Amino acid sequence: MPELRKDPIVGRWVIVATERANRPVGHRVEPMAPAGLCPFCEGSEEKTPHEIISYRSRDSHPDLPGWRVRVVPNKYPALQVEGELNKRGEGVYDRMNGIGAHEVILETPCHEVSMANLPEDNIREVLWIYRDRLVDLKKDPRLVYGMIFKNVGEAAGASLEHTHSQLIVTPIVPVNVQEEMNGAEEFHRYRGRCIFCDILHQEMETGKRIVLDSPHFLAIAPYASRFPYETWILPKQHNSHYENASMNELDDLARVLKTVLKKLEICLEKPAYNYMIHTGPLNSPHLPHYHWHIEIIPRLTRTAGFEWGTGFYINHVPPEQAASQLAQTPTA
Amino acid sequence: MPELRKDPIVGRWVIVATERANRPVGHRVEPMAPAGLCPFCEGSEEKTPHEIISYRSRDSHPDLPGWRVRVVPNKYPALQVEGELNKRGEGVYDRMNGIGAHEVILETPCHEVSMANLPEDNIREVLWIYRDRLVDLKKDPRLVYGMIFKNVGEAAGASLEHTHSQLIVTPIVPVNVQEEMNGAEEFHRYRGRCIFCDILHQEMETGKRIVLDSPHFLAIAPYASRFPYETWILPKQHNSHYENASMNELDDLARVLKTVLKKLEICLEKPAYNYMIHTGPLNSPHLPHYHWHIEIIPRLTRTAGFEWGTGFYINHVPPEQAASQLAQTPTA
Repeated sequence: MPELRKDPIVGRWVIVATERANRPVGHRVEPMAPAGLCPFCEGSEEKTPHEIISYRSRDSHPDLPGWRVRVVPNKYPALQVEGELNKRGEGVYDRMNGIGAHEVILETPCHEVSMANLPEDNIREVLWIYRDRLVDLKKDPRLVYGMIFKNVGEAAGASLEHTHSQLIVTPIVPVNVQEEMNGAEEFHRYRGRCIFCDILHQEMETGKRIVLDSPHFLAIAPYASRFPYETWILPKQHNSHYENASMNELDDLARVLKTVLKKLEICLEKPAYNYMIHTGPLNSPHLPHYHWHIEIIPRLTRTAGFEWGTGFYINHVPPEQAASQLAQTPTA
Repeated sequence: MPELRKDPIVGRWVIVATERANRPVGHRVEPMAPAGLCPFCEGSEEKTPHEIISYRSRDSHPDLPGWRVRVVPNKYPALQVEGELNKRGEGVYDRMNGIGAHEVILETPCHEVSMANLPEDNIREVLWIYRDRLVDLKKDPRLVYGMIFKNVGEAAGASLEHTHSQLIVTPIVPVNVQEEMNGAEEFHRYRGRCIFCDILHQEMETGKRIVLDSPHFLAIAPYASRFPYETWILPKQHNSHYENASMNELDDLARVLKTVLKKLEICLEKPAYNYMIHTGPLNSPHLPHYHWHIEIIPRLTRTAGFEWGTGFYINHVPPEQAASQLAQTPTA
């Protein structure tokens, strides 16, 4: 059973998951599985745990070929669904059982390594299955936050190249999310507006940091980008929760995400990257101060001691330059 | 002139330093300079900016051979000393000029790549020169925080292998330091004690996570270690500021640091790692709630989307196991 432990000084939680020592990425990085041995390819369904949900042809069966998008439990889960939280103290420390969920979203049955190469319809189904999972997990009152993310390339922490995303569901609101919500709430209390909406207006007005402008989304290089070519995708209409996005929005997002990823791939020569969906907690109602969005961070540089110690980042590419370069990159 | 920009949501500051695009580590990592071409070796003094301070033989001269430990400005500084802060707004955003300091501490004139191989006396002088720099920089009222850190190995963000550390001085208290101080202050307000002192007592009592116990320091694998084999070195006597450490303490620390680094090198086969000195702000008096310490993080795994998005870390080596392994590693 993994354990959740809290740093008593800053309140940061850590998952101490001894089971994960067995997974392919251990102390030293192993080469990734080639197409023939890939457990995420069609025909290898028996190499993953039983599927949770899939979008598949009507005449096909779970855990067999015929799927287009498939969600399975992570074979080396950071958190597990079974059991009680059992919160307890140990002198100055706090801990609880590592209850939660850790799922893998297989985005295509073919051994494609780039999400940007998937057809728009395929990406649209990935975005829908994200939604379906969040909606389903809301039913479990022990689960509080669902983080959907993607690791591409070894430098971004990926251990398999077949394009996939992950969902980790935690029994508490993670510290980074809490801080983002606190900051946004403070602004809302003071000004009565959503800070993300204000950012959207200002960015659309100045136009200096726009990567892509679509009917429902704005992709920007954020003003205080931590990383070169960091890109955020924000819905233009205020909405705190990803799972409440409309059909029209997700259709548009499929195109926007594909285009932005393609631009990054062309501009940065297929960089390692992560993306994360920042969304409201599973157990909260619609929030007037919070605004879901996607953050994409190319992993071109390494975080060093200064960043770890201070939380300050050093970015040698001004976001205005990154945005203009990405905006001008043709994708057709 | 580098620029400091603030994320309006979470208040995180970023250094946008266009000058740094010219330094050896750019988009792609270049191979490190071998001994003959190393700008940090004795005899190559002209390859660095003019020295700020050095400990050297009496008959030698600044910027010439004869030094034992030498501090120079970083050739590709993240922040610069000259100028005014000029704080200003831009709609919803805040920024100021990138005023500060960025220095490199050359720890030995020989091309040694491991600090653990330096003689104890040498390390002692490195620790003293850290102190001398912090004390000197306190005199500039624009400078608020001094972060001393070390990057070893490409995976830890190092661009040169010759053993060295760095000092970046910022005009504001970095967010991570502020959070650590806030957490410690809250505990102090509630219990009237320093949380770090409480941790020291509990760790000495249980003994489960001790890596090394010396007269003045305790090295532990922290209870909520973010990374496998993360190790903290804490002074046993309460003290908020590194630069106020006593002679006896720094003598002892030289031995402790050498031993702990040696243990990590042996146990983990010369891992990439960072260390950071967490200390009180330059402009604050002695603090009853804060306690300076060193955090060492081996870079064995890559941080991925989940960690970036949530601030949660997944650690597959329980700190109790890491501590027992490190404690048992002989260094003689």
